[in-house]
Amino acid sequence: MESADQGSEHGYIHRKDDYLKRLRRIEGQSRGLQRMVEDEKYCIDILTQISAMTRALQSVALGLMDEHLSHCVVQAAQAGGQEADDKLREASEAISRLVRS
Amino acid sequence: MESADQGSEHGYIHRKDDYLKRLRRIEGQSRGLQRMVEDEKYCIDILTQISAMTRALQSVALGLMDEHLSHCVVQAAQAGGQEADDKLREASEAISRLVRS
Amino acid sequence: MESADQGSEHGYIHRKDDYLKRLRRIEGQSRGLQRMVEDEKYCIDILTQISAMTRALQSVALGLMDEHLSHCVVQAAQAGGQEADDKLREASEAISRLVRS
Amino acid sequence: MESADQGSEHGYIHRKDDYLKRLRRIEGQSRGLQRMVEDEKYCIDILTQISAMTRALQSVALGLMDEHLSHCVVQAAQAGGQEADDKLREASEAISRLVRS
Repeated sequence: MESADQGSEHGYIHRKDDYLKRLRRIEGQSRGLQRMVEDEKYCIDILTQISAMTRALQSVALGLMDEHLSHCVVQAAQAGGQEADDKLREASEAISRLVRS
Repeated sequence: MESADQGSEHGYIHRKDDYLKRLRRIEGQSRGLQRMVEDEKYCIDILTQISAMTRALQSVALGLMDEHLSHCVVQAAQAGGQEADDKLREASEAISRLVRS
Repeated sequence: MESADQGSEHGYIHRKDDYLKRLRRIEGQSRGLQRMVEDEKYCIDILTQISAMTRALQSVALGLMDEHLSHCVVQAAQAGGQEADDKLREASEAISRLVRS
Repeated sequence: MESADQGSEHGYIHRKDDYLKRLRRIEGQSRGLQRMVEDEKYCIDILTQISAMTRALQSVALGLMDEHLSHCVVQAAQAGGQEADDKLREASEAISRLVRS
């Protein structure tokens, strides 16, 4: 699971509190879904909530990717060489996973 | 949020425990993501976990939709009339939201 | 490729001309993309056109699925039995492919 | 439609023939879909072909994005300043459109 990471400061860190807040809200949505199933709510209403939660997750992912490109990838591009190539391949693979999931 | 629902038993209910188990695992993934951000893990590793969580959510949604079609939509189709039309429109809209999210 | 299809009239047929018109427009978009690559246009502009074309395709797919549910699936649900089960499984698999593509 | 583009050689150009070949195949798929509608083929079979065509388009988009990052974005990152910021914002927006379409 752990990728080779050269320890430079990650782009998202200066907005860490914002990401934690959004992820806690997503955790709340996942508990809301459990309550809906527990209470035998209507399937379509559960599906509407799942779509909202998926969009919230996607939005966190796009924010992280944006900051990853602006920080880690830019730093690697400036350093050049193998590190730049590795970071770019890694970013492209992460974009593919996002687009396909 | 609440849709017009005629109170018949929902398709997913006979597998309620399975859905609750899967949603608790998704809640666990959302807490795992918070720990990763808290511990300032590498962005790409966080994105990999978000992709896994999105796929898990999507899989719950597809399961619910399958059971919704097999139960509520089939019952409505057999009843016919306005109820059938309403259920079909509602299902199509939910499919659109899933495809577009 | 061919699915077992019982030969009843498909739902989309009464709107065949509309679908053909939309698919010809999509064909036009695919030729526009070739011209952009031929003329060495900027990658981001090509990606914008690909996103528009993907949305147009998705919209055709959602329209077809909607009419498939309203016609073939409703008819099968009314007939009941194995045919209904087969049609529902087939529709669920097609929805999964759409959501995951 | 045209983005501000500084005229440097685009990343995809050294693989132009490969992209043209893939886009011609996608054009062929769009004509195949018209024939299927013309011949009133079964909706589910048409949907299967649309899913295949969407995946082919997505794969072209991911290839172009990969080469865009490796060439234009890396060059801009090395140049720095406003150009780097603009290219990164533009790339992030294109990734969002891909993920959401």
